[in-house]
Parts: sequence; structure tokens; C-alpha cells
Amino acid sequence: MDYTNCWLEYKKISDKNKSDIALLCEIEGPIIKNGIKELTTGFHSLYGRYLNIVNNEELYQEAKASIHIKLDTSLSLSPDGYRLECVSGKSIIMATSEIGLLYGVYALLRNLNIQKIVDYDNWSFTEEKEPANPHRMLNHWDNMDGSIERGYSGNSFFFKNNEILLNERTKEYARMVASVGINGVVINNVNVKNAATELISFRYYEKLRTMSELFASFGIKLYLSVNFAAPIELGGLDTSDPCDDKVITWWEDKSKEVFENIPKLGGFLVKADSEGRPGPFTYGRTHADGANMLAHGVKPYGGLIIWRCFVYNCQQDWRDTKTDRARAGYDNFMPIDGAFSDNVILQIKNGPMDFQVREPISPLFGGLKKTNMMLEVQIAQEYTGQQRHVCYLIPWFKEILNFNTHCSPKHGTVADIVSGRTYHNTSCGIATVVNTGNDINWTGHDLAAANLYGFGRLSFDTELTSNEIGKEWIVQTFGHNEKVEENILRILMMSWPTYEKYTSPLGIGWMVKPNHHYGPDVDGYEYDRWGTYHKADNKGVGVNRTESGTGYCSQYNEPLASMYANRETCPEELLLFFHHVEYGYVLSSGKTIIQHIYDTHFEGAKEAEMFYQMWDELHGLMDEATFDRGKKRFTHQKEHAKEWCDVINSYFYRKTGINDKYGRPLY
Amino acid sequence: MDYTNCWLEYKKISDKNKSDIALLCEIEGPIIKNGIKELTTGFHSLYGRYLNIVNNEELYQEAKASIHIKLDTSLSLSPDGYRLECVSGKSIIMATSEIGLLYGVYALLRNLNIQKIVDYDNWSFTEEKEPANPHRMLNHWDNMDGSIERGYSGNSFFFKNNEILLNERTKEYARMVASVGINGVVINNVNVKNAATELISFRYYEKLRTMSELFASFGIKLYLSVNFAAPIELGGLDTSDPCDDKVITWWEDKSKEVFENIPKLGGFLVKADSEGRPGPFTYGRTHADGANMLAHGVKPYGGLIIWRCFVYNCQQDWRDTKTDRARAGYDNFMPIDGAFSDNVILQIKNGPMDFQVREPISPLFGGLKKTNMMLEVQIAQEYTGQQRHVCYLIPWFKEILNFNTHCSPKHGTVADIVSGRTYHNTSCGIATVVNTGNDINWTGHDLAAANLYGFGRLSFDTELTSNEIGKEWIVQTFGHNEKVEENILRILMMSWPTYEKYTSPLGIGWMVKPNHHYGPDVDGYEYDRWGTYHKADNKGVGVNRTESGTGYCSQYNEPLASMYANRETCPEELLLFFHHVEYGYVLSSGKTIIQHIYDTHFEGAKEAEMFYQMWDELHGLMDEATFDRGKKRFTHQKEHAKEWCDVINSYFYRKTGINDKYGRPLY
Repeated sequence: MDYTNCWLEYKKISDKNKSDIALLCEIEGPIIKNGIKELTTGFHSLYGRYLNIVNNEELYQEAKASIHIKLDTSLSLSPDGYRLECVSGKSIIMATSEIGLLYGVYALLRNLNIQKIVDYDNWSFTEEKEPANPHRMLNHWDNMDGSIERGYSGNSFFFKNNEILLNERTKEYARMVASVGINGVVINNVNVKNAATELISFRYYEKLRTMSELFASFGIKLYLSVNFAAPIELGGLDTSDPCDDKVITWWEDKSKEVFENIPKLGGFLVKADSEGRPGPFTYGRTHADGANMLAHGVKPYGGLIIWRCFVYNCQQDWRDTKTDRARAGYDNFMPIDGAFSDNVILQIKNGPMDFQVREPISPLFGGLKKTNMMLEVQIAQEYTGQQRHVCYLIPWFKEILNFNTHCSPKHGTVADIVSGRTYHNTSCGIATVVNTGNDINWTGHDLAAANLYGFGRLSFDTELTSNEIGKEWIVQTFGHNEKVEENILRILMMSWPTYEKYTSPLGIGWMVKPNHHYGPDVDGYEYDRWGTYHKADNKGVGVNRTESGTGYCSQYNEPLASMYANRETCPEELLLFFHHVEYGYVLSSGKTIIQHIYDTHFEGAKEAEMFYQMWDELHGLMDEATFDRGKKRFTHQKEHAKEWCDVINSYFYRKTGINDKYGRPLY
Repeated sequence: MDYTNCWLEYKKISDKNKSDIALLCEIEGPIIKNGIKELTTGFHSLYGRYLNIVNNEELYQEAKASIHIKLDTSLSLSPDGYRLECVSGKSIIMATSEIGLLYGVYALLRNLNIQKIVDYDNWSFTEEKEPANPHRMLNHWDNMDGSIERGYSGNSFFFKNNEILLNERTKEYARMVASVGINGVVINNVNVKNAATELISFRYYEKLRTMSELFASFGIKLYLSVNFAAPIELGGLDTSDPCDDKVITWWEDKSKEVFENIPKLGGFLVKADSEGRPGPFTYGRTHADGANMLAHGVKPYGGLIIWRCFVYNCQQDWRDTKTDRARAGYDNFMPIDGAFSDNVILQIKNGPMDFQVREPISPLFGGLKKTNMMLEVQIAQEYTGQQRHVCYLIPWFKEILNFNTHCSPKHGTVADIVSGRTYHNTSCGIATVVNTGNDINWTGHDLAAANLYGFGRLSFDTELTSNEIGKEWIVQTFGHNEKVEENILRILMMSWPTYEKYTSPLGIGWMVKPNHHYGPDVDGYEYDRWGTYHKADNKGVGVNRTESGTGYCSQYNEPLASMYANRETCPEELLLFFHHVEYGYVLSSGKTIIQHIYDTHFEGAKEAEMFYQMWDELHGLMDEATFDRGKKRFTHQKEHAKEWCDVINSYFYRKTGINDKYGRPLY
């Protein structure tokens, strides 16, 4: 096999107990079949024990150790919730649906594994869980030629040479992401071009149907990104105007055809009027017109339209200080709050810019009140080290989810909104741009798998802490070893703050090399058309987004608007996002801005060196290939962190002429 | 025909004289055949007259108007010189070789055309010319997949899909460049990879032989760029060590094979140990070892090795202030002056960096005394507007050629050195990275053809002025029209200084976007590995290359070394190349550096606007398609010049905080 099992390795815990475990399961189905297979694999790997599948209650009762998979529609659990009861080696997995049971299976194995239960036969344990978010989705930006946009772990395992791949790896993928609760997958890039436009045609239906059924056997719905201009490019019409009858009919017919051929499809994801993609603006229509027209087509089949809010002017004049890209999402979508059909979900990036290491939360979350919302994050690390630097993003996602938008007195957090608690809806949830490819370890950096694992776990159970998730992932991936746990957990938990320290300071973002977005280039986007500026001059740095500037602050509910607008109350990690501040301004630490920049950068680079050391200490405590892969990445990270540190510090040193208080080298 | 004739259009001058012109030509040969064809085309187009080819002296004497093509080995002319004598419509073209006669033919037609001779039958004229430089070469950076490295005028007309193209356009190309005196052409990119490595194999010999014969019929030698690692990649050896017997034998055998199959081949061009290309350094050998080994192989067949001196450390640490890319050519090649075989020519870029709009002259020209040298310039405009901005480079080339290196009291200029006057050699000359592609007008921008024309004319006749060359080109291309001549000549003559004004100031260079090199990015290369820095901080800008800096100044002969080392005597257009200077330093104009930056940039942008206006005035005075192509380019140039102006000015404004004296907008 040319790929690893990641956290589903089930490293041996004990082989003391050799007796079979009786398994009673009274229902049948493709999902349950996968559940039983998982239990079989898990128990054999963890304990060297076999499952003895029994059909009558008696044999089951006699067994010393057993598992009972039990559908119970009387439970007050959502369909994908589960209840796990284990008393002295006799477990019952209960749920109201097959998928709930599968989740229970994964939960049982996970708990045995992370709690390091040596003696299953004497284990007692109870757990009841319902997923926190209705939709828990992965967005793959895979192109049909096999490349992946912003992919840092090899090529696509879904596509190659404009063909769909369907093989053992497809199944392993589904199993892996199902194990952490993922229930929706968009397999193709949101930038839908060329052959990808034809995914909704007979050229690909057969394979897509097979894939959707495979996914469904793990409780996952398949989604497709579609091209808003498909009526023209695929249908030969002369327009894609969402209010044109021909176009409406075309999408009605097309949706019928698609769902007839792929009945288990979840729906479509759409990037429209964004970075050169076609959309309703071309025809003077609103995004509601566009989304609702598509939603109308898929509605008879229970389909969803997930509509991205990443709409901004990417042809901005850098001299123009009035236009503010940060404002664009809110300015575009707030006026049409309430205008969307109920099977439309707006997918909103966590911040108003684009997956920077630090951004404020998108004001759309606190703004929209009558529209389905999904949070979009990105574990592909486009701007956070591209899976060559370790950057464990779960702490960042926790902050995002816990952010109180003040849209509601009781349920005001982003987590409340996307879970459905705030507005009592079910078309909502969390999506991530995912970080997988056909590399042997799936994610390029072995530690980047913690983000995949963590995203899934967090989207299922928002209450988990980053620390808990990190620990879970480490022991399932590397087995139980104190030193390994300690060092890797420390690396993970430090990694996001460390990355933030040695890159762009205080929330301003974007000091990266253009296009590929890797490595420092302070002015790389400063005089360009993308709306991404830092405005550094010899006196100060940052963008004035208060009322005297672009006015972006006022897109937030109070007290946030006032908090951000005042530089004394603005959270310091976002100070330069909201304010243009002179270098001598003193932060709460007592440091000036310039000294803060110097200090954090030197610190961050030093921490990256520590990561290398901490990893190096693990030599011999994991298999050699994994260790070597990690060592290469950490070697690069420490060198590249120093490069970041020196470039950013030297840039500001040259601009200000202000020396470092401690006389460290600036160039 | 899907391409233009450029300056060989022969627009009608007069059709008053209808009588035939008697043509007497007593010799035969492929070159003469092309000459006669050219005369036929030319006279018919210019005057609507036919040539009456006569074989006996009598008929010829009787004709009122005649041309006599006459080989005369007793003339004291170099083989490619010619003598033209015309008395009242009776011309004699004389030379000691076929190619001299062909040049005489082009000269006759050119003179009739540019002098606008209405009445050939009463024209009297004498001209005798020998080419100033033995080798007058074009270097095509064409890749075999059809792309062109740094190509801005379409794709290759030599290669497509790894095959060699041979068609009518190949012949038109040869005719066109022969008409301005080019006698050597390297058809493939100096970065020799993949299929291009196989150009010296049976896969391509047949077509190359045909091409070389076609070229030879225009007096042009075909050259090939070769891969120094060919013994490994093509020969299957385990080394390319130039001192290894296996390698020496391999190249001996390979050269024999190549010249047996392509007898008219001129030799090989080599880029070694440069920007990742393989070379002798890999084996601890010198460039003399490498070049001489190849020279030894081709010597029996009269072959030449042209060896590029573009060797520098492209993995420099930007923090390192001791290493200086400008020094690299001299440091690498001076110690081995005199060590090269007599059939090796070192090809040296005009400046020590890489085709910036302004650089000092490479100190190698004044340094090397016992080595054949060829000057390399670049009309592809990689750093001078990429054939979207007009930038007539002939004035710059004139400066380069006229530069006195002080290597000899009497013949110290670059022109002296590369013509052979200084060291009495014949393996020398001028080469340019050329600007052609398969665009309809050959050069992307119609006005960029002036650089192709001009390069050829200047390499043949170094005494011509830029103005003369510009005029010649204009009337041959656009016909005779006072307004067209006036406006285009003015645009051409202003264009290089204008481009210099709105781009990087005072000789420092490199303020371009990385990789593609188009558009402003002041820090684009500042924190990178390419050795191309401006060192701007809030106090000053420029690189100290005096003795207290990198010491580059001392690579020049006196009095140049002292002149450059002193900021008061250093030519101001190169001030920042040689010195780090504070922004308040006052130039001879009375302006500070910072005000000079502001002023020149605003001026340059304004001039680009003027170009647009001047072109616009020519509407109706040329064919519509040509006018429209130009209009698009000038529209872009004026906008892009403004972008350059605003970015550069704003960068320095933000860095210094110093206002423009005239309060013009800075951002």
C-alpha cells in the first residue's frame, strides 16, 4: 500500500486477552457493513482479538466480552447521534440510524485507543453524542487534470487526465474522513473550468454514481462544484442570466438529469462573480437571483446550493483608499439577507480577507439573520506554511467558533449560528478547504493530518478543546509514548502562535510572495490590484478601517464596532488590521510597535528552531520513514522562519531607521 | 501570408519609368540566386519595372538602365564587403565573394528606397562598405516545444512540439536578417534541455542540414546551443568532466558526426555553470578546460565555440554584503585570460548584471587581453518593456560600443575590441538575444522591429548613428511621409531615455516583478537570492561598490576605476549602481536624489502619454491594422508608465517621508 492509515493505524495496545468478542447486530446495510469491518479491523489490530458474529441473543449473553449494535428509534437523538454504553466489556452501540451507529463504532474504537484500555473485558464507559453541526464538509480544490489548486501534498486522488479515479484509496479516504464525522465532500475545485464543467454530463455520471454510493456507505454526501456559465459552455445557450426562462429551464432539466443519474448527490457548490468566475453580476442580477435559480432546479430532489460569499473587486486600484476588500462580503450580501431560498446556504470564509494567519471574524456572521450560513475555513494552509511549516489550526478555529458576534443575547457565537442554535435552522455547518493529496501520508507534512483530524472532530463536537483533539490525534497516529505525546503536543499547541509571530505582524496579513503565497515579501501585494495593503511608511503601518477610514468597523454589531474602532480597546493582535498606527505606539506589553515586531519575529524564529529540536528528540520513537519526513520539514521550517524573521525585521528597520533595543542583527 | 515583410516591403516610389532594366550577372550560386530574386522583387515593387537578364555584354551596354553583378577578387575588400558604383542608372555591384555581392544588392535597394530615388535612370551614387564586425549574430532563446524564453512576440517559428519547422517563413526570416548583415544565427535556447539536447543527434540532422543550407544561401551560418551535460544525457556516460578521456572522445566523435551531417554548421553556443545549468565547475575544472575541450572537438571542421560569461552565484544570501554579482564575470574569467583556444569566443553581456535599462559596461572588455570576445546585447527587451513598451535600444548600443575601456591608447572602445581592431583577431563580433516570434509583425510591437533592423545595421556598420538607422527603418517600413517619419523618429529617439526615467532610477536596476520581470516591484528582488539589490532604507539608496564596499570599481582600468569610485565624478546616471547615496545628495542639476526620482518619473510617464498622442496623429497615414496594433500598445504603455511612476515614487515617498517639491500626488 502506498499510503498510510493516518490515525486509523490502530497500533497494538495489548494482546493479553485472546478470547473472541461476540458481536450482535440485527440490522443490515452498506453503512453497518463498514461499521462491522471497522470493528473487526480495530479489535484485531488493538488487541489481536477476533469478532464472533452471533445471531442469537443467547450466545451473545453468554460471551464474556461483547458488542451489540442496536438501532433504537425511540432514543431522543438526532439521526447521526449515537449512544455508547459499556459495562465490564459488554458494549452497546445505539442510534436512531445506520450512520449514527457507524459513528458509535468509530467512537468505541477511538475511546479504547486514546484511553489506552488494556483490558477491554473490564472496561466500563458511557458516551452520548450528537454532532454539533448539521453539515460537516470538505471542499477539495482538485482539478480534473490531477493538479490541486493550493494543494501541498501531491496530486489529486479523485482525478487524473480528466478522468475520475475510483480505487481502494477512494474507499480509504471515505473511511478516514467518516471516522471523524465528515458528512459532505465536494470533490472538484470551486474554479470550474474545462472538463470539470462536464462533471454534470453523461461523460461522468456513471463513475460519480459509483462514488456517491461508496461515500453514502460511510454517511457522506457527494457534492459537485458547478460552473455558473454551464448553460453557455455546456448547454450551448447564449446566456447564463438566472432570470432568463431558457436558463431556468436548462437548469431544471439539468438538475433532473443529474439527480436521476446520481440520486445520492447532495447538491452543488458555486463560486460566482469571484476572481474572474462568471456569475449573476454579468447580467445585472443579484446573488439571490443566481442562487435561487439553481436552488429551484435541485429542490425536487432534496438538493442544496452552497453559495460562496468570496465576492470582491479584484481589480482594485491600490491608490484608492476608499475601496476596502474587507467590506466587500458584507456590502454584497447584507442587502439581500432573507432573499435566499431555504435550500441555499451561504458559505462564508472565517475572515473578511482570505485565510490569513490572523483576521477578524467576518461581519456577515453577525449581520445576516434570515439566511442559512456555513463557516468556511482552510486547512490547506495556503497562507500558514503550506504544509511545510507545522501550523495546527484548531486553536484558531476554536477562537473563530467561540467569537461572540452579538447578533443574539443568548446564542451569539459563530458556533451558535452555524450549528443552527441561533436561528433554528438545519441548513448550516462548517466546511474546510482540505489538505489532502496523493502523498504517501495524505497531507505532505505528517503533522498536517492533525488539522484534517481536528477539523472533523471539531465540526462534530465543537466543545472539544484543541488540546484534547491534539492528544487524541497523536496517540492514535503514533501510539502511546510519553515523550512523543509531550513533544508533538507542545509543537502543535505552539505552532499557530509561532507562525503568527514570525510572519506578518498584528493582524495586517498579506506580506507574502504573490501568486504562490509562500515566503515573505512585504510589498508583494502592496502596489497591486488585490485589495490587500499594509500602508507602511516611515512613520506607521496598518489600515484605518474606522469611520475616518474605510468604515469597515461599523459592519460589526455593538459593542464590537466600538471596540474595534478604538485603538485602545481593539484587540492588539488585530491592531494593524483596523488602525494605521505609528511605530512608537506603546502596546499593553509596554513595547512599542516596532520593538514588538522585532521581538516577536526573533522569538518565532527561535521557536521554529525548538520545534526542530523537539522533533529530533523523537528519533527512534517512531518508524524511521515518518521521522525522516518530519525532520526534512522541520529543517526547512527553521530555515524559512529565519528568512521570514530577517526579511520582515529588515524591511521595517530600513523603513524606520529604528534600531532593535537588544542590538540583534537587522540587515 | 500571415506575416508582414517588415522593412522589405519596398513600397512604391515611382512608376514613371516603365522600361526594363538590364541585369548582367556572370556567376552562379545559391547566394547570387537570392540576390537576383531580391533585385527583381525590389525593382518591381519600387518602380514597377522588370529586370531583363542578359548574358552578353552588348545587350547590357545598350540598355539605358542596368545592373551589373560582378565578382572581382582583385578588390581590396574583405569577403563580405561590397562596392556599389552607379552612374546615371548604370549600377555595378562588386565584391570578392558571393555574399559581398548579396550585401551589395541589399545596399542598392536600400539606398534607392531611403533616398527616395524617383528616377533611377539618372541616379549616380557610390558606396563601399566592409562589415565592422566579423560575427554578427542572433541568439534565439526558442524552446523545442514552441515556447520562447523571454519571448514577447508569439511562439517560435523554428520549433513546434519538439519538431523543427521548415517553411516559407524560415526563408523569409533568413532573407530579412541577411538584408541587414546578420551572418550567424543560434536557433535554440541557451538553456538546453529535453529534446533540445538531441539537436546534435540523428533525430534532427536532416532538417538541420536543410536549414543550414537555406541559411547559407543568405550568407548565414547556423549555430546550435548545446548542453554541457550531453555526454551524460545523450551519450550515457557517467560524467561530463572536460578532462575525462571518455568525455573528450565522446565530444570528438559527436563533433565529427554533427559536422559530417551538417557541414555548413558554424559551431556551438554554451551556457555553462549558469543559473543551474551544468558546467565544468561541477568537476572542479575551469571554464577554459570546458570550452577548450569542446573547441578541440569542432576544430577539424572549422567550428567555433561561443562560451557565455554569464556566470555568477544565483544562490546568494541577501544579507551578505561582500558578495557582489557585478564582480562575478571578471572574477571568474580574468584569471584564465589567455587560456582559451583560438576557436573559442567568450560572449560577454554588455553590463555586469543582466540587460537592465542602464548598467556600466562589463569590466571584462577592458580586462581580457588574450581572449576572443563577443559583445552580447538583448533586443528582446526583457527588462525594457518586453516589446509592449517602445524602447529603441540602438542609442544605448551606440553608447556601449563607444565606451572607452582604456585597455589600449588607440583602440580602447568596446567597438574596437569586438571588431578585432584592438587585438587583430577575427573571432569576435556582436550578438543579440533576438526579439522575433511568429506574431504577424514578427516582433509583437511593430516598432520593436527597429531594434532588429538596427541591431543588424549597427553590427555591420558601427559608424551609423541611431538617428540614421531609425530614419532608414521608418521609411523602408512605412514609406515616405513626413509626419510619419517625424513622429516615429521622435518616439524612437526619446523612447530609451523615457523608459529609463519612469523605471528604476540612476542605474540601480532590478525594481521589477520577479520571474516574469514585467512591471514595478521595488523590493521584488531585494530579499532574494539573485544578487540584485538596491539597499534602500529611510536615509539612502544604492550599492557601495567602491573599495569600502564590494570593490567592484577596481575591476576597471584607470582612469575609470577612480572616476566610478568617486561620487562626484561618477556619471550620475550610474550613481546608485556604484554608491549608496543619501536622498538629500544634490545632483549636478541642483536637484536632490529624491526630487530627481520624483521629477524623472513624472516626466517619463508624461512622455509615454506623448508617445500615445504622437502615434494617434498618424491615423490614416498607414494601414489600419498596423495603426491599431500600435495604438493598443501605446495605450498600454502610457497606463503602465503611470503605474511605474506611481509605484516607484510612492515607494520612496513612504520610505523617506519627503514630499514632492511640486505637490504632485504620491500615495
